[in-house]
Amino acid sequence: GGCRAPVRVRVLVINTGGTIGMVEEEQGLAPEANKLVKALKKMPMLHDEVYAKENKHCDCPKFPDNTLVLPPSDQNKRIVYTILELSPLLDSSNMTTDDWAKIARNIEKYYEQYDGFVILHGTDTMAYTASALSFMCENLGKTIVLTGSQVPIYELRNDGRANLLGALLIAGQFVIPEVCLYFYHKLYRGNRVTKVDAGSFNAFSSPNLPPLANAEVDITGFIMILFSNVWKAYVLNMVDFIIVVQMNQVKAFLQPPMEGIVLETYGTGNAPNNREDLLDELKKATERKVVILNCTQCLRGSVAAVYATGQTLTAVGVIPGGDMTPEAALAKLSYTLSKSHLSWEEKKEMLSENLRGEMTVVPTGAKISLTDS
Amino acid sequence: GGCRAPVRVRVLVINTGGTIGMVEEEQGLAPEANKLVKALKKMPMLHDEVYAKENKHCDCPKFPDNTLVLPPSDQNKRIVYTILELSPLLDSSNMTTDDWAKIARNIEKYYEQYDGFVILHGTDTMAYTASALSFMCENLGKTIVLTGSQVPIYELRNDGRANLLGALLIAGQFVIPEVCLYFYHKLYRGNRVTKVDAGSFNAFSSPNLPPLANAEVDITGFIMILFSNVWKAYVLNMVDFIIVVQMNQVKAFLQPPMEGIVLETYGTGNAPNNREDLLDELKKATERKVVILNCTQCLRGSVAAVYATGQTLTAVGVIPGGDMTPEAALAKLSYTLSKSHLSWEEKKEMLSENLRGEMTVVPTGAKISLTDS
Amino acid sequence: GGCRAPVRVRVLVINTGGTIGMVEEEQGLAPEANKLVKALKKMPMLHDEVYAKENKHCDCPKFPDNTLVLPPSDQNKRIVYTILELSPLLDSSNMTTDDWAKIARNIEKYYEQYDGFVILHGTDTMAYTASALSFMCENLGKTIVLTGSQVPIYELRNDGRANLLGALLIAGQFVIPEVCLYFYHKLYRGNRVTKVDAGSFNAFSSPNLPPLANAEVDITGFIMILFSNVWKAYVLNMVDFIIVVQMNQVKAFLQPPMEGIVLETYGTGNAPNNREDLLDELKKATERKVVILNCTQCLRGSVAAVYATGQTLTAVGVIPGGDMTPEAALAKLSYTLSKSHLSWEEKKEMLSENLRGEMTVVPTGAKISLTDS
Amino acid sequence: GGCRAPVRVRVLVINTGGTIGMVEEEQGLAPEANKLVKALKKMPMLHDEVYAKENKHCDCPKFPDNTLVLPPSDQNKRIVYTILELSPLLDSSNMTTDDWAKIARNIEKYYEQYDGFVILHGTDTMAYTASALSFMCENLGKTIVLTGSQVPIYELRNDGRANLLGALLIAGQFVIPEVCLYFYHKLYRGNRVTKVDAGSFNAFSSPNLPPLANAEVDITGFIMILFSNVWKAYVLNMVDFIIVVQMNQVKAFLQPPMEGIVLETYGTGNAPNNREDLLDELKKATERKVVILNCTQCLRGSVAAVYATGQTLTAVGVIPGGDMTPEAALAKLSYTLSKSHLSWEEKKEMLSENLRGEMTVVPTGAKISLTDS
Repeated sequence: GGCRAPVRVRVLVINTGGTIGMVEEEQGLAPEANKLVKALKKMPMLHDEVYAKENKHCDCPKFPDNTLVLPPSDQNKRIVYTILELSPLLDSSNMTTDDWAKIARNIEKYYEQYDGFVILHGTDTMAYTASALSFMCENLGKTIVLTGSQVPIYELRNDGRANLLGALLIAGQFVIPEVCLYFYHKLYRGNRVTKVDAGSFNAFSSPNLPPLANAEVDITGFIMILFSNVWKAYVLNMVDFIIVVQMNQVKAFLQPPMEGIVLETYGTGNAPNNREDLLDELKKATERKVVILNCTQCLRGSVAAVYATGQTLTAVGVIPGGDMTPEAALAKLSYTLSKSHLSWEEKKEMLSENLRGEMTVVPTGAKISLTDS
Repeated sequence: GGCRAPVRVRVLVINTGGTIGMVEEEQGLAPEANKLVKALKKMPMLHDEVYAKENKHCDCPKFPDNTLVLPPSDQNKRIVYTILELSPLLDSSNMTTDDWAKIARNIEKYYEQYDGFVILHGTDTMAYTASALSFMCENLGKTIVLTGSQVPIYELRNDGRANLLGALLIAGQFVIPEVCLYFYHKLYRGNRVTKVDAGSFNAFSSPNLPPLANAEVDITGFIMILFSNVWKAYVLNMVDFIIVVQMNQVKAFLQPPMEGIVLETYGTGNAPNNREDLLDELKKATERKVVILNCTQCLRGSVAAVYATGQTLTAVGVIPGGDMTPEAALAKLSYTLSKSHLSWEEKKEMLSENLRGEMTVVPTGAKISLTDS
Repeated sequence: GGCRAPVRVRVLVINTGGTIGMVEEEQGLAPEANKLVKALKKMPMLHDEVYAKENKHCDCPKFPDNTLVLPPSDQNKRIVYTILELSPLLDSSNMTTDDWAKIARNIEKYYEQYDGFVILHGTDTMAYTASALSFMCENLGKTIVLTGSQVPIYELRNDGRANLLGALLIAGQFVIPEVCLYFYHKLYRGNRVTKVDAGSFNAFSSPNLPPLANAEVDITGFIMILFSNVWKAYVLNMVDFIIVVQMNQVKAFLQPPMEGIVLETYGTGNAPNNREDLLDELKKATERKVVILNCTQCLRGSVAAVYATGQTLTAVGVIPGGDMTPEAALAKLSYTLSKSHLSWEEKKEMLSENLRGEMTVVPTGAKISLTDS
Repeated sequence: GGCRAPVRVRVLVINTGGTIGMVEEEQGLAPEANKLVKALKKMPMLHDEVYAKENKHCDCPKFPDNTLVLPPSDQNKRIVYTILELSPLLDSSNMTTDDWAKIARNIEKYYEQYDGFVILHGTDTMAYTASALSFMCENLGKTIVLTGSQVPIYELRNDGRANLLGALLIAGQFVIPEVCLYFYHKLYRGNRVTKVDAGSFNAFSSPNLPPLANAEVDITGFIMILFSNVWKAYVLNMVDFIIVVQMNQVKAFLQPPMEGIVLETYGTGNAPNNREDLLDELKKATERKVVILNCTQCLRGSVAAVYATGQTLTAVGVIPGGDMTPEAALAKLSYTLSKSHLSWEEKKEMLSENLRGEMTVVPTGAKISLTDS
């Protein structure tokens, strides 16, 4: 037996597509089905063939052909991982809200059978999916790690091997009950990241929150965790009628059936206050109960009420988005709007609060946060 | 006399508004007219009152009341600068293409009378204005420096004093015939920057090109300059019918009178290739001679033709924007479309070329740029 | 009267010399006595002349001619500061342990009369002095801030104005009962910094501890403070017979009267383990009760017991210095050795403990600091 | 045959020891002989077993058992590499000048037979060895790359695989006729680096020169190369009588047989100018023709003649070291002193010049390097 020996942990890897498993085709790189497992089985750093054969009698996994096992880790754990490939595999540019729901449903379905989860995903929209899952997974008690790569794992020089290995070690060895994103030796909170570099292995940034952990010579981190046992994946009935727009484009989008909008404004949340027409449209929209969230275009910083141009927006009913990324704002708005049992006021309240660590809440008046003598 | 003594140089400061000259009003910070000059006159680091009085007889400046003089610089030059305040002063969120044209017309009008130009501007849209001016100023032979600040110059602790002083010293002492942006001790190429931080003095980033110069203990830089004497400010007949859109919003904007669009796509220029409807609309639009430029959402990196999802866009007539910022792309598109004597093909050609150092041109096939043995 | 009105705070500025107050002489930059106060009085951002005159009757300061007052701060406080100039003024390269004691004696003498302290110091050895003062000032209950500049405050473009202003605002407005170092908008723990750049305004780094606070658009920080009222400046009877040496030089220095040595070793504290002669000398020395502290040459990281070459040193009685900077190690050793009432074992114990936040103490066995499932 | 087919290149890997090949022993990590080749043969990313067997008849390599072959690269080259293990394997803390000479002799011996060279080395003194080899290898015409790792290649999560692969691809595919150091996706000039982090994979820094190349999604770089065909490895008759000392320790080391000293001074090369005794000793030493090179302790920046305290050193015959690292200074001094046919003046001249790109030479008077109008 021994399958349930404490030294073994199970991780489910959900492969959604993305560069990590892409192959060169005539029209450029594209994902190819049923290829990743075969490739991984030939990489000793990602699969211990000898151990796997010796423990074959241990027929626990539901998907024996798709189940691999890592060499022993520092902590002497054996991480057994099963790859579940979604169909069709998607370039992350092709991801829709339906695909987010599909991932969430799979986590829910296999939640009890696995100790942790890794989601392979293209880098282009990984921050969006991570943000969405962070809201969809209510009362999460296990670790979910999204990862992928900038260069396919089939290439000689690639970042896929190290990213997958690190994500597996974190999902299998630590209980960080959050939706995280692991890339280039750093573990980020999933709803805090944004892709900043199209040409470097160091592709992501978490501009307003330091990484949760660093996996360098040692794995180190400073994480405060509230453990929860009442997990329930909330599968979104995703609302499609929301959009990210820049201020000057807002007019075209405020008509029904639009239910919510993420505004990308300048600096600390400023927008023209001499464009009465735009402000008028915004006011009419909020009166129609369209929900409008205000985020900054800047990589770092927060929407605040410092400038006359910024206060104008609050006055017409726009909700300040603090230091949320546009990715997180879009996902949070979608999540909130899908809660059909909530009133419009409750939804606005919910959007202003920190739900999953996605925004920094500063106590009122605490602009200077040092101890004042 | 001595006004024309080689030791004196003249700089024109065009004050368009922005935080640097804002004061606290009931509704937040807002610009106030005729206040900046008075304040600067009381700051010894920005005005040498004794020297100014002694040289009063030297009545060259056209605007004596608005003319100040810096203390002597390292190079023993006297920088005499005149402040021209635009009316009304604008929060940069309220800037429009008309305001760009107004700035360009002022540079043209005073081009011969001054040795260099400083433009005070709000930080929120400074990168847009810098990009636009870089295209509008053809055959530039003098230095134009945009600057501003995150905290008003009237506050005790502020970044306005240092930014203005640095901009004046660069515009007055060096011939860098470009439109530059100076902030927090760094001189950037104007069409390469983007605002990345709403809360730090280090507000700007030039993700794909290092700063032109650093003004630290010494002013150092490595600048290749093509000097030109055939200056002609090209005052744009600004085209308003262009817009920056994200891929999923493109449909709503492709109808006439739209003439051009900057697409913000994922990663290395990818967009959904399973959304036949969108691609169809794009194709129809390019066939109607709408010009569509493709830029990455990522801070760093370049639009390339690596992925199947990216090649799809090129196939329907979209022009790859390389490593241009969205700010530069918008300005370049506006500049190109306003050249009404050009054919559609010539405009497309122009957009693909590097005009003002705004994009990095990599020779075909030079993906690996090291000497290959 | 009003001198004791809560809105006014008093800061003592001890000017020890350094670039900030230097003037160009024939042989290069050198400090000049009695010049700084006169210069500061002419800078409106550092002295509010009108207010000072109106409040002249308020004859509290002991040194009226050397007392200046800042313009009102954000928090509407008036910071009145008095400059005490040490004689002679020193280039920080000329600082000795006697000078450290002189500074400490002045803090002790004026401790009750002032609310905070700023020490102007050359940058070259500022990290050494800050480290030494952090150990000398036992039970500190007020803020001490060292600062200086890379370019003299008399130059047109300089970092002295902003550094002095920031240090005054922090020493006058916040109770951070530590010896801190303020430079380029960052407040560091004094015994954690090291000078890393001879040519940039951003001259210091705190490689193993983030800044205590950032003074950007707002002053923000995350500081845990243990307030103490039992202040007593411990004026060191400084021990001169200690030195920082590299491993291969150690032999020459181990002879009496040497009492202590800071070893700068490679990487995580490694030294040759095939040089029996050196190890022998070290063993003989520790047996003679010479105290030997082991620090890494690396900017970042910690002396640990991972490598065979590192364990060799521990075996011959060398004390691992963790992630202390060499500057802090030197000062801590000096401080410990001067405690003549302590036994050799107590001194070794003291050196292994964290006394003033100068080293990170990791609980035994906590190499992986994440929650382990 | 086919061995000489253009598609195949040969790289010699000289394994000197270091963490990359270390195993856990009772006393900590230590190198173990004859183990690395066996381990590498089992890693498909570093050895293509199928190809190797099929091409066995191709009996060119002198050391068939130690010869491995990489999978095909982007450029469709086959890199065949032979591992030459030095005996004994050394922890880099145990490296001496004799070991530098041994490496150089091996490069000389196999120079014609291989297209490029990789040297596996411990990280602690890798910068010293790289600096020394850069001077020893005169008229180099092939690429030499030093690399190693922070975590042994036998561990599950390690940086050895990626560092070795990158070094092999660069040594095998590009002609960069320099001694380089490759670590964490960056290729540095060997005599410009220093180890800055004991706990991160990103262990090295090249503070005063950007990396020669980055191996991220693509391998990119901007390298000016002077190709040379008159290679001659200059195997040093290494001079042991040189040392790196801090100013206050200099006295003890200036006695014969010391021939040269690298001074580590503060900031921009400053030392106490009130210590007549020290300066006197320095003067006597330079009069005895001891060569003294002055380097800054700071990570970044350069020894310049700005301060009175700095000029004092030049006056007593000390040579300013510019922005050389202490590692490069030590190696350059050793190299220069070993040229016994040179006069003392010629040696001093040689030390002041840039020999291998190890220091930045600024034309006299070019403090402000921008074009001055």
